[in-house]
Amino acid sequence: MLKIGILGGGQLGKMLLQKAADYPVETYVLDADPHAPAAHLSQHFVCEKVTDFHAVCELGRLVDVLTIEIENVNVEALHTLSQQGKLIIPSPHVIETIRDKGLQKEFLQKHGIPTAPFKLTENKRDLFANIDFIPAVHKLRSGGYDGRGVQIIKDKNDINHGFDEPSVLEKLVDIEKEISVIVARNTKGETSLFPPAEMVFDPVYHLVDYLISPATIGPQVTEQAYSLAQQVCNALNSPGIFAIEMFLSKTGELLVNEIAPRVHNSGHHTIEANYVSQFDALLRILQNLPLGQPTPIKPSIMINLVGEPGYHGKAKYVGLEKVL
Amino acid sequence: MLKIGILGGGQLGKMLLQKAADYPVETYVLDADPHAPAAHLSQHFVCEKVTDFHAVCELGRLVDVLTIEIENVNVEALHTLSQQGKLIIPSPHVIETIRDKGLQKEFLQKHGIPTAPFKLTENKRDLFANIDFIPAVHKLRSGGYDGRGVQIIKDKNDINHGFDEPSVLEKLVDIEKEISVIVARNTKGETSLFPPAEMVFDPVYHLVDYLISPATIGPQVTEQAYSLAQQVCNALNSPGIFAIEMFLSKTGELLVNEIAPRVHNSGHHTIEANYVSQFDALLRILQNLPLGQPTPIKPSIMINLVGEPGYHGKAKYVGLEKVL
Repeated sequence: MLKIGILGGGQLGKMLLQKAADYPVETYVLDADPHAPAAHLSQHFVCEKVTDFHAVCELGRLVDVLTIEIENVNVEALHTLSQQGKLIIPSPHVIETIRDKGLQKEFLQKHGIPTAPFKLTENKRDLFANIDFIPAVHKLRSGGYDGRGVQIIKDKNDINHGFDEPSVLEKLVDIEKEISVIVARNTKGETSLFPPAEMVFDPVYHLVDYLISPATIGPQVTEQAYSLAQQVCNALNSPGIFAIEMFLSKTGELLVNEIAPRVHNSGHHTIEANYVSQFDALLRILQNLPLGQPTPIKPSIMINLVGEPGYHGKAKYVGLEKVL
Repeated sequence: MLKIGILGGGQLGKMLLQKAADYPVETYVLDADPHAPAAHLSQHFVCEKVTDFHAVCELGRLVDVLTIEIENVNVEALHTLSQQGKLIIPSPHVIETIRDKGLQKEFLQKHGIPTAPFKLTENKRDLFANIDFIPAVHKLRSGGYDGRGVQIIKDKNDINHGFDEPSVLEKLVDIEKEISVIVARNTKGETSLFPPAEMVFDPVYHLVDYLISPATIGPQVTEQAYSLAQQVCNALNSPGIFAIEMFLSKTGELLVNEIAPRVHNSGHHTIEANYVSQFDALLRILQNLPLGQPTPIKPSIMINLVGEPGYHGKAKYVGLEKVL
């Protein structure tokens, strides 16, 4: 039985393991939290940090193939394992490039992939030196997620809200829509592309409010989005699942916003709504099985439920009965 | 968090737990096999026999609600727990009635539910005493499954293949089709009915070869099937998932063949093909949530793959690449 190791036991790992039970695989999860969402769904759970060199090496030795559900893992260990011949999906160098937003922007630029103009900053002082670049978005190079580590700098007065750590200062794009194309690429270099999904962001939390699949864009933009996603994927040159988030500007330009080298929240709807989900696609890649058909069975919507500010305790869902 | 206990850790338990991970529940599985398909998918696994009185009582005390994925459990323990106020779904008396094919037939008869005429037999000798009842099907009252414990007695010469244990001798029905209606019933007595599925049996193995959903029967027979399933469910008067297997005779009569008081192989297609699957429906019943919509998203087919006779070792799937 193929032994699959997963670095991280969060909700993405959980959804991956729910599907993994359909296949003849043995699963190993590494996570420091014994109550992590995925902890109880694997055959083997190792309670250690994914950032620990020895823990990652140890897990790698137990399995046939290793994957991630979070980028913040010990990449040195992955390089070591890779050099020893272990199959790592995605490639360690890709994780390294993508998880640093500065390196990611430079990578896109180097490969001629359209993306918003940017500057790298080390501290707040650098913002003053780039005053003519404002209005812009300031993003921490590492550690940001779901709206954290992102700050809009509209004018001089906002500079104090900027980050005093290595960050990317990105020209503000006048956005018509934000879309995401998930690409599955196997070890032979074959790819399958999920239809663009449209992400509508909450203006306060800077995280996905809801998502529509397929995106409400015309066939021409759809084709461009596929083509751009394929271009990014060719440049990355690694097996795995990649979420390519894009801006469609008001002037009709498609720009790559960010890449995720793993299953992504812009693909959750594929569990019920598409013939093959992003999780299924990853499992097929790990097992060297055909990628299958990522097309939708039906159009779908994914809604992000965020807790009321200041509320603590058991979640209360208004309207749950109706939804169910 | 609601604590759910499941007696049995087979593939039905596995599929139930894959879906359970979508809900805020804590799961407990009881099975004597530490490598049972469901063993690694629960938060708590107890490695004891489901037929053991103390093991079942012990598990019942740990959880808020107890269900089954196999009928062959210690029902005495369930009666004890039920008397102590524990919620058991389905009711212990229903498990007791259904799992004995003799009691099940008498139950159907008592409630005026159409079913093939039958005789109870204690041994082979009783078959000779019922020679005018032949051609008939001889079925073990307990312990049969997936074609085991079923023997067709076409004429006198077949009597030696009959069972020398308590069995049911059932008049052979001239079958046009076999269908199944899965019913979900909550603790308030509300029900939802899954559209009839058509089961095509393998004539040699006496088990489902493939299944078509929805069944290729007209709207009138469909209505009759719903009505008959509802009638059985009313008579059972228990919460739970019930698979009502029926014969449609060549003369157009609908007869109840067998009942299962649990998720059933005639409902596996509902995982991908219906808005709410039979597993989801059971989880909603256990949590007292709305039953939801059991209707199909798309028509579907479920195929049973049976190993080549005499073959041992790793399964080889011919055509798997194409299917995937």
